[in-house]
Amino acid sequence: MAAKLSGIAASDGIAVAKAFRLEHPVLEAKKRRITDTGAELSRLDEALAASRRELEEIRERTAGEIGEEEAEIFSAHLLVLDDPELIGPVKDKIRTDSVNAEHALDETASGFVALFESMDNAYMKERAADIRDVTKRILSHLLGVTVPNPSLIREEVIIVAEDLTPSDTVQLNPVYVKGFITDIGGRTSHSAILARTLEIPAVVGSRSAMETVKEGDLLIVDGSAGEVIVRPDDQTVADYTEKQQTLGLQREELSRLAAEPSISADGHRVEIAGNIGSPADAAKVLEHGGEGVGLFRTEFLYMGRDALPTEDEQYEAYRSVLEQMDGRPTIVRTLDIGGDKKLSYMPLPEEENPFLGIRAIRLCLQEEDLFRVQLRALLRASVHGKLKIMFPMIATVDEFRRAKAVLLDERDKLKAAGVPVSDGFEVGMMVEIPAAALMADAFAREVDFFSIGTNDLIQYTMAADRMNEKLGYLYQPFSPAVLRLIQNVIDAAHREGKMAGMCGEMAGDERAVPLLLGMGLDEFSMSASSILKARAKLAETSKADMEARIGDILSMASGEEVLEYLDGLK
Amino acid sequence: MAAKLSGIAASDGIAVAKAFRLEHPVLEAKKRRITDTGAELSRLDEALAASRRELEEIRERTAGEIGEEEAEIFSAHLLVLDDPELIGPVKDKIRTDSVNAEHALDETASGFVALFESMDNAYMKERAADIRDVTKRILSHLLGVTVPNPSLIREEVIIVAEDLTPSDTVQLNPVYVKGFITDIGGRTSHSAILARTLEIPAVVGSRSAMETVKEGDLLIVDGSAGEVIVRPDDQTVADYTEKQQTLGLQREELSRLAAEPSISADGHRVEIAGNIGSPADAAKVLEHGGEGVGLFRTEFLYMGRDALPTEDEQYEAYRSVLEQMDGRPTIVRTLDIGGDKKLSYMPLPEEENPFLGIRAIRLCLQEEDLFRVQLRALLRASVHGKLKIMFPMIATVDEFRRAKAVLLDERDKLKAAGVPVSDGFEVGMMVEIPAAALMADAFAREVDFFSIGTNDLIQYTMAADRMNEKLGYLYQPFSPAVLRLIQNVIDAAHREGKMAGMCGEMAGDERAVPLLLGMGLDEFSMSASSILKARAKLAETSKADMEARIGDILSMASGEEVLEYLDGLK
Repeated sequence: MAAKLSGIAASDGIAVAKAFRLEHPVLEAKKRRITDTGAELSRLDEALAASRRELEEIRERTAGEIGEEEAEIFSAHLLVLDDPELIGPVKDKIRTDSVNAEHALDETASGFVALFESMDNAYMKERAADIRDVTKRILSHLLGVTVPNPSLIREEVIIVAEDLTPSDTVQLNPVYVKGFITDIGGRTSHSAILARTLEIPAVVGSRSAMETVKEGDLLIVDGSAGEVIVRPDDQTVADYTEKQQTLGLQREELSRLAAEPSISADGHRVEIAGNIGSPADAAKVLEHGGEGVGLFRTEFLYMGRDALPTEDEQYEAYRSVLEQMDGRPTIVRTLDIGGDKKLSYMPLPEEENPFLGIRAIRLCLQEEDLFRVQLRALLRASVHGKLKIMFPMIATVDEFRRAKAVLLDERDKLKAAGVPVSDGFEVGMMVEIPAAALMADAFAREVDFFSIGTNDLIQYTMAADRMNEKLGYLYQPFSPAVLRLIQNVIDAAHREGKMAGMCGEMAGDERAVPLLLGMGLDEFSMSASSILKARAKLAETSKADMEARIGDILSMASGEEVLEYLDGLK
Repeated sequence: MAAKLSGIAASDGIAVAKAFRLEHPVLEAKKRRITDTGAELSRLDEALAASRRELEEIRERTAGEIGEEEAEIFSAHLLVLDDPELIGPVKDKIRTDSVNAEHALDETASGFVALFESMDNAYMKERAADIRDVTKRILSHLLGVTVPNPSLIREEVIIVAEDLTPSDTVQLNPVYVKGFITDIGGRTSHSAILARTLEIPAVVGSRSAMETVKEGDLLIVDGSAGEVIVRPDDQTVADYTEKQQTLGLQREELSRLAAEPSISADGHRVEIAGNIGSPADAAKVLEHGGEGVGLFRTEFLYMGRDALPTEDEQYEAYRSVLEQMDGRPTIVRTLDIGGDKKLSYMPLPEEENPFLGIRAIRLCLQEEDLFRVQLRALLRASVHGKLKIMFPMIATVDEFRRAKAVLLDERDKLKAAGVPVSDGFEVGMMVEIPAAALMADAFAREVDFFSIGTNDLIQYTMAADRMNEKLGYLYQPFSPAVLRLIQNVIDAAHREGKMAGMCGEMAGDERAVPLLLGMGLDEFSMSASSILKARAKLAETSKADMEARIGDILSMASGEEVLEYLDGLK
């Protein structure tokens, strides 16, 4: 009998394949008295070593098959595995309480997990999830139980699970995993986000998939509708296969746009670029037809490790991206940590309001040594491509001048030392603070380019934490307040003959693309998977037509009104 | 021999009087074994009762002689004294450890103080200070030692202390205490702020006053220069007495302005009003010639107590203010808690970024019952004067409409029940979020008036926590970004024939007054003690002259440039 499940549409597309139930074994960690503590400590060490080998292997495979950024989580897991603050107390417990390693590990880890979860801090909660994940892995080795390893799947399947752990998710190989369904989780859960990156159709929060679906059942996942059909009849399979083919054709059509320039229906050309987090991501941008990199988030070079990256490590990363981009404009944002992004090896003071705190350029101007290492690496790499350096979180002209002065000082020193530095690199800034958007005229005289960071610009303009779910109603990209700031930035840039780009999520939003085109935006930078859709949207939009509407749109009273108007244009 | 000390100028004016050294006795809480725990518990109870009587008396005297708001601290101390979470463990410790009450109290309280201080949260740190203060008081009663009580001083003195505790400070009676000097503390310490409110000359952070000054030494405090002269010769005393007289004459001249209207040199009239925190403050506003109340911060009615104020309690407070203001415009801001303002009896969820969180109107729209109680109290009081109700932290037109709808719903219900409600009350909003300032044109069609809250507006516009000392350089009231927003609000209000006022600290800043006059601000609301100085500044400024300069000022690139320009005008 066919059955139909509804859930949350997490990632577009249709998949038809057999079910693969991903069940995590129950890992019992019952307390046992032991007599030979030495032997027990050896058992623990062996389990740790086996876990380490396993994690290193998974990390490598993930980096190669999926991406460097996705592999980061296993670097974090390896750090947990080697953390003396976790493993030390476990060993102490075995010694002093004469208990088995499973129990000592489970008790100690539970304490840390509870502590970190109680902290009500997104970063600490993530650490709690890491510890839970690593503990499971060590326990499985202690107990001789196999943890399911989705990276070993070698036939086409749709994965069904109660939930996917972060390490499950990053091991999904899109060659074999055609879709997935989970009982819990939301549209912004880690697994949902990764599904979209991998372009695997997914439905999350289905509540009863594990109860309804048996191993090997034929399944249809409609990731756009948030629907799952279990054991469909032949007609349904045929219908969905046709739908799937239509979607495939559309995608193919889109992919033909990969080699095309980004031109509006009335012939206005803009640049569509990609946002990246690591050198490995540059390939994806090119694959999807990106005309440049509009945002390289360099903080990923600093994360998931236990010390600062050296100048040479950074140089190699920047060079790799610039070489891959082969002369296309490549905007590298200098380090943006603080706020919700922290480094385990560089403790920053706790702040009452980290989003209004010492982050990004504010930190770099305070910790000039840290900043100078990155700038030197960038300057050395500048000879390998078209480098554009961008400072984040600039609020005042003085900050921009100071940051640029440090950059030029390093350039002069390198040149004096005979190190080759390009003369053609550009220096620009993110516009993500209301003061910067309001003062765009003054900044435009000093910068080579702007890139509008909408995520932060919206949160500060509305004075609403974008991570606070209860204030979601105030996160309004289409609020005329935000749009007026954006228009001010674009106009100020053009008056000085400078480029105005955007690298926030809004740039890749299909409803925003026509609007931003009409407002005069020059460059749209987005996740690689959005590039072709944006280019197609652009090709069917007339800039002149949208331009004529901007006055009306900017004088509307609310974001809802703007959205309604834009939806009416379709 | 005369000696000269330099410190931080904390409060203007000159004082000449004898030194009164305020020394806190060392309160030893050595551990002793006791045998009769019953007797020890009685000793503790007696000390608690004596402390309670003392605190109640000080609270009453402070409320009467100084102000309701200043007396709040003792309400907080009384809550600490009755807190079972503090006193319970002390009693347990006496019982189970058989130790003396002093030791049990000291140990327990130290634990709490350490915990709260480590939290790195301004509210918790204040709680730590309260516990420390109350513990001292109980210990003094247990030890039979007298804690100095500055409220008993009955001759003219200048107080010299290492530091003043909050409870010392609020007991300073300006009739006798002519000035004070402390070795530690900064310009924004609790005692410095209170000195300015009481208009007592003060120098803080002198480092060596306790070492240099002997009891009864003649002292001169120059609070404007941050200087102290110890044992001055006769000529110096004569010089400073003359200076003092000149200052007194200036002040007298100012006080003649109390009965005058607020008019610029070229005859343009504005309103200068006062900010208040309690009904008792209204008298001070009138005394200083305030033409209205521009901001009644109603959260003080909710603080320093252990339950929500009832509708009747609130009604009485609002009525009292309206009656005292006797027909003058009185702007009452609805509850603004959340952010850095919390209520002990109403725990709010911890937030990552409380300043970007659920505060003020956001909370009131979520907790409508709480909101409706306050609105009913306001509506009932509306018949007693010229009431203007103002909503804080409005970001979108929709929020304003929703808040106003709740207000009108309560009005209709009251009217239907036969309760008299004025037909003349106005409904306005704070402009303190960039989005609101940017959308002032849309809001101006809906509100009766605006009041610009610069403290928050600056922090959001610059994306810099105004409580974060390390980001002080970004708190720039004179940044052209902020000024452009203010100008936009004023212009939008005037196009719709509405009033634009300001109730942030900027409105009382002597350098800002001419600028804001030129920008067209209609109402300036500030602390009572700034009103006359602002009126005098206004009287010597030509609006037309400033108006002609605004275009240039708004096109400057930085706050420094604006300040330099304004300073050049003097």
